[in-house]
Amino acid sequence: MQTVDEKTKELIALDPFANILGIEVLELKPGWARSALKLREDDLNFLGMVHGAAIFSLADAAFAAASNSFGTKAVALSISIDFMAAADPGDELFAEVELVSRAGKMGCYNMQVENSNGKLIAQCRGWAYHTDKPFEE
Amino acid sequence: MQTVDEKTKELIALDPFANILGIEVLELKPGWARSALKLREDDLNFLGMVHGAAIFSLADAAFAAASNSFGTKAVALSISIDFMAAADPGDELFAEVELVSRAGKMGCYNMQVENSNGKLIAQCRGWAYHTDKPFEE
Amino acid sequence: MQTVDEKTKELIALDPFANILGIEVLELKPGWARSALKLREDDLNFLGMVHGAAIFSLADAAFAAASNSFGTKAVALSISIDFMAAADPGDELFAEVELVSRAGKMGCYNMQVENSNGKLIAQCRGWAYHTDKPFEE
Amino acid sequence: MQTVDEKTKELIALDPFANILGIEVLELKPGWARSALKLREDDLNFLGMVHGAAIFSLADAAFAAASNSFGTKAVALSISIDFMAAADPGDELFAEVELVSRAGKMGCYNMQVENSNGKLIAQCRGWAYHTDKPFEE
Repeated sequence: MQTVDEKTKELIALDPFANILGIEVLELKPGWARSALKLREDDLNFLGMVHGAAIFSLADAAFAAASNSFGTKAVALSISIDFMAAADPGDELFAEVELVSRAGKMGCYNMQVENSNGKLIAQCRGWAYHTDKPFEE
Repeated sequence: MQTVDEKTKELIALDPFANILGIEVLELKPGWARSALKLREDDLNFLGMVHGAAIFSLADAAFAAASNSFGTKAVALSISIDFMAAADPGDELFAEVELVSRAGKMGCYNMQVENSNGKLIAQCRGWAYHTDKPFEE
Repeated sequence: MQTVDEKTKELIALDPFANILGIEVLELKPGWARSALKLREDDLNFLGMVHGAAIFSLADAAFAAASNSFGTKAVALSISIDFMAAADPGDELFAEVELVSRAGKMGCYNMQVENSNGKLIAQCRGWAYHTDKPFEE
Repeated sequence: MQTVDEKTKELIALDPFANILGIEVLELKPGWARSALKLREDDLNFLGMVHGAAIFSLADAAFAAASNSFGTKAVALSISIDFMAAADPGDELFAEVELVSRAGKMGCYNMQVENSNGKLIAQCRGWAYHTDKPFEE
């Protein structure tokens, strides 16, 4: 399977949590996704820095999309995030995720978050459990 | 130091990202905090489940508060989250964090997220870098 | 099931890698284990400190035993280790592991490594995939 | 600094724990290293599989060498390992590590473990704390 059907993309685009944060899934292929977040005032923390949880949410949106792109539902078991550099308030961030390994129902995914200049902001790694349940039901 | 001064608590309560999500820091002691999130429709993902990034954000809010409770600024280096059970939409979640170990500027913190019945929803672990910069400036 | 049968314990005690390092599983209950390592010269690194991989190996031995204690084979998907304090060369270290959560074939385990005074040396967390294959075959 | 001095390489090659396991650091550049392990009977676990802690030890040897390659001592704060595929008993494994990001005293390193055919066996990520103490003393 080389493409993700439009219905799946439409359902993923309705994600309420991503929408409240302004996170958008830009591209989606089986096991691969790219998401974007235009940073707003609301994405700052109490120190005036871009909030780590906003960066995590961006990466997680890509992860959720990619792991649910195979026609069946997947859920996250674990995600780790490592912060490489601070992001600039007002910048736009991009997350890219790829499936690294799939063994049975388990998939391991790597995520990278970069700023608009391609600077590495964070790395993440996550495990998804791929169920047998069809994605669209 | 056994208590956190009111000015620090007030600044932490202004966290824009936590506020947009409705996350509240309920209690704060040096190296320890408890946060809460009443789940809303906006906290769901495209599968209709409570979003992992909402759960992460709740834990991270407690972590950020606790690591910034010593009078100097701290930033997160890394956080891992492991999902133990699905949360119920409409429930209220609580996160508790405690400092496990401090060596020089490095602090390691454990977080637990539970639902309103005390059921374990997620575990997190994070490292903070404690700077010398005063928290209130 | 409240106990682990003797045959399982005997097979686990034959672990070649644990034996070469002198790691012993002291106690084993379903989903729970305790292992020990008397530190030797060979457990040091090139800085003269107790090697992180020796500490990891001790925790992993307990994890492997506990996750294989239910009558079926289990394999590790991921393990993270966080070092809390340096261990003293010549001391004895103990690792304890417990199953925190089991959902289907996935189990999440927490490990703690302490020295002979009960001081926390390291924390670990791991995921095991529990297969259907009988442990003894 | 583009090369690592010979004295540093010699001290790293004396690592007792790596030597007992037969792990060798093949190449070392500042922030980068490659290590190898010819798998032996002793590297198996009680299931007859290559032991996860042997794979971890190989990656950690590269990480320790790379993080101690800058002329000052470094210690590991945390390491996570994710297992991608089983290794074949009798094969040779190789680990490569690179520094991804350095901020002040903190360095984040990525490790990959591959078999002799270049198949990905495990991924690791670790944080090192870079002290000011000279490596050779």
